[in-house]
Amino acid sequence: MESGSPGISRPLEPGPFLRGSGRAASVSSLSRAEAGPGLGSAAVAAVLPAGGCGERMGVPTPKQFYPILERPLISYTLQALERVCWIKNIVVAVTGENMEAMESIIQRYQHKGVSLVEAGVTRHRSIFNGLKALAGDQPNSKLSKPEVVIIHDAVRPFVEEDVLLKVVTAAKEHGAAGAIRPLVSTVLSPSADGCLDHSLERARHRASEMPQAFLFDVIYKAYQQCSDYDLDFGTECLQLALKYGQTKAKLVEGSPDLWKVTYKRDLYAAESIIKERISQQICVVMVTKKDEELTGLLEEMLTHEINDVKVTSGALYDAGRDLQQIILEQCYNFVCVHVMNFDFQETQKLLSMLEESNLSILYPVVVVSVHFFYYKSVPFDQKMENQMRIREFAMEVKKRNILLYGLLVCFPQDEMKLQESLRQGATIIAALIKERKSGLVGQLLVV
Amino acid sequence: MESGSPGISRPLEPGPFLRGSGRAASVSSLSRAEAGPGLGSAAVAAVLPAGGCGERMGVPTPKQFYPILERPLISYTLQALERVCWIKNIVVAVTGENMEAMESIIQRYQHKGVSLVEAGVTRHRSIFNGLKALAGDQPNSKLSKPEVVIIHDAVRPFVEEDVLLKVVTAAKEHGAAGAIRPLVSTVLSPSADGCLDHSLERARHRASEMPQAFLFDVIYKAYQQCSDYDLDFGTECLQLALKYGQTKAKLVEGSPDLWKVTYKRDLYAAESIIKERISQQICVVMVTKKDEELTGLLEEMLTHEINDVKVTSGALYDAGRDLQQIILEQCYNFVCVHVMNFDFQETQKLLSMLEESNLSILYPVVVVSVHFFYYKSVPFDQKMENQMRIREFAMEVKKRNILLYGLLVCFPQDEMKLQESLRQGATIIAALIKERKSGLVGQLLVV
Repeated sequence: MESGSPGISRPLEPGPFLRGSGRAASVSSLSRAEAGPGLGSAAVAAVLPAGGCGERMGVPTPKQFYPILERPLISYTLQALERVCWIKNIVVAVTGENMEAMESIIQRYQHKGVSLVEAGVTRHRSIFNGLKALAGDQPNSKLSKPEVVIIHDAVRPFVEEDVLLKVVTAAKEHGAAGAIRPLVSTVLSPSADGCLDHSLERARHRASEMPQAFLFDVIYKAYQQCSDYDLDFGTECLQLALKYGQTKAKLVEGSPDLWKVTYKRDLYAAESIIKERISQQICVVMVTKKDEELTGLLEEMLTHEINDVKVTSGALYDAGRDLQQIILEQCYNFVCVHVMNFDFQETQKLLSMLEESNLSILYPVVVVSVHFFYYKSVPFDQKMENQMRIREFAMEVKKRNILLYGLLVCFPQDEMKLQESLRQGATIIAALIKERKSGLVGQLLVV
Repeated sequence: MESGSPGISRPLEPGPFLRGSGRAASVSSLSRAEAGPGLGSAAVAAVLPAGGCGERMGVPTPKQFYPILERPLISYTLQALERVCWIKNIVVAVTGENMEAMESIIQRYQHKGVSLVEAGVTRHRSIFNGLKALAGDQPNSKLSKPEVVIIHDAVRPFVEEDVLLKVVTAAKEHGAAGAIRPLVSTVLSPSADGCLDHSLERARHRASEMPQAFLFDVIYKAYQQCSDYDLDFGTECLQLALKYGQTKAKLVEGSPDLWKVTYKRDLYAAESIIKERISQQICVVMVTKKDEELTGLLEEMLTHEINDVKVTSGALYDAGRDLQQIILEQCYNFVCVHVMNFDFQETQKLLSMLEESNLSILYPVVVVSVHFFYYKSVPFDQKMENQMRIREFAMEVKKRNILLYGLLVCFPQDEMKLQESLRQGATIIAALIKERKSGLVGQLLVV
């Protein structure tokens, strides 16, 4: 069952989370080569078991489908794998009842190169089904056997390319490899009566994390040989490779990012991390060149709140290309600055560009339409009317995952007070960007 | 060094997080008895090592002092311990350089029964210092030796009374006891060359968590006997009790809440959990009885968003006592409903009551001043003026940790549209309560 996605396309580089070490690096260093550096021409595929039911989470939805910023967790994990150009195929194992939901996730978020297989009743059986699909010995399979297979978890969305490359390279050399982390808690061995028998020396043990990678033949043969007991009660692929493939896996130190979304608190943590990552950069669009001074001051205030503030001017006539570039680089936050102007034309143009770009397919995009007025000249009678208009636009673009807010800055002549107004404005803009919640869209806020 | 807190007092029952099983239960079942049920007259104290520097967190502040909703993490942990009436003393071990900061935390958040000792260079040395202070053999010590001592972590703020009682009861019987959890990851034993030697059977091992409890004499003697190597490199008190006290600790299954705030993501998770817990209940205050119909409709809409909606009427004249009760029960969210009325007098009275109650010492309190107007009669000219006034009040009460917002609901005559307006209003109120961020205080939002 291969799922593609026809129609409109996402921005070119879907590298998750805008991290410098992410997509941009891989694209430049690998030039979309056939394989990663050090991998020669090895074909690499990935298997993602996603048949779990999430009983530890305390929520009805299986955790891999739990929405984070309204997008299912598994889509973030797929995004993290598919941005790695040397991973050719991703096989996801899902239960029959979630097959349709998974297909619609692939279509909606335009994931590429993903195939689905039916999950087994245990994690090992799901992985085995994924491996069978990759073995090329299934009827009608369009997949070809890879040299190396990555096994990852659907609920570890923050995996970076460098650790994937490390485990794959080590698997090529050693036959098997897996990411590990230091233990957070001491491990105890209880006696039969529920008392402490002994505690393990923490420094001599490690937690086994994901991703793991294997020479395909090593792990596939191990699964073919292993017992029903292994398939039903075993937890660790590395152990199967050792037991049935006589292969001692290389252990690779991973980063804290590899952690597994297990409990409800992990969902909260994942949402906060994602929100933080897409709030690092803001693009300030000036409607006309003459607004340079105020825009510059606002920019200065915003740099105290947001890491990376880009300004583009001349709005959407001259700056169309600049803006297209900024959108391509995946900036998810826009401020459109108007001085003595309550018109929404420019904001609407920006909204149209954003809609056309499909930037908001993966993350909600925040747009703040800022309107500066001298204190004495605020058109009060217009204000309510504009409040209604901005609400209408907001409701419309919210359907496309764009969160629009208005901000009216009544600025005084006094230089000191102006600074204060701009500071407050920047605080409000930063709050809207960092929260990224739709409850307040369409509000016209006032400084 | 005993720190108390003079002056104004916090609400009577500081039971954290409004959970049914929390303070209220302990007060009624124990009637503030000398000890917990099953503890006889055992005196219980707690030691909290808090000398760590938080290097794993990736933040400059040691993690126990990291602010969550602007309050240091350790204050939440102290709150969780001090609400348990049978814990007589809490000894916190902090480094010399953090001593003053810790004293000011105790004063500011009015923690009771907390003593400070200087931390050692390792966790074990800090705990030992805490035990020495409790041993009663120090000059000038005001503390008396407890029968049972709890050892907990400053960075596990969500510990519940029931697990504390379980470990203390088990320690009385067995001499030592500790909370455990199932392992999240498989534990591996690496060989010297960084490859897998063997993996541990997950079902036969447990993660050691906190709290732990000990008969004071057992653990104090163990510390007195143990070597410098143990004090510098050991991690596990249960192991010391076994090695030097020949005491096999009873292992007690704990809840997932016991997890340790270790990484930055754990801070995000802790903040989200705390915000969720204090957003479960909202109190709707009607200014006059004649507003009953609209208030009732708003209440209905709010119940879709917030678990527990309480309505009190007649505002602050008649309902003063009701409201006092609601404040005492630690409701952190208030909506003050006005119909055809842009006056802030009632909201101001509510704010005064909240300020006097000191409810906001521990958590930010959200107040939304809601003003209903028939669509045709909205006093546009008053709106900007009121926007300015509400901002002024908001800036003032923000200093006291109260977050004030305004909400103008222009409701139509049409019944259907009215429902929709109220639904939108409830969504906005819920968003303000759930986010609980100060960036937007003083805004007059409009539906």
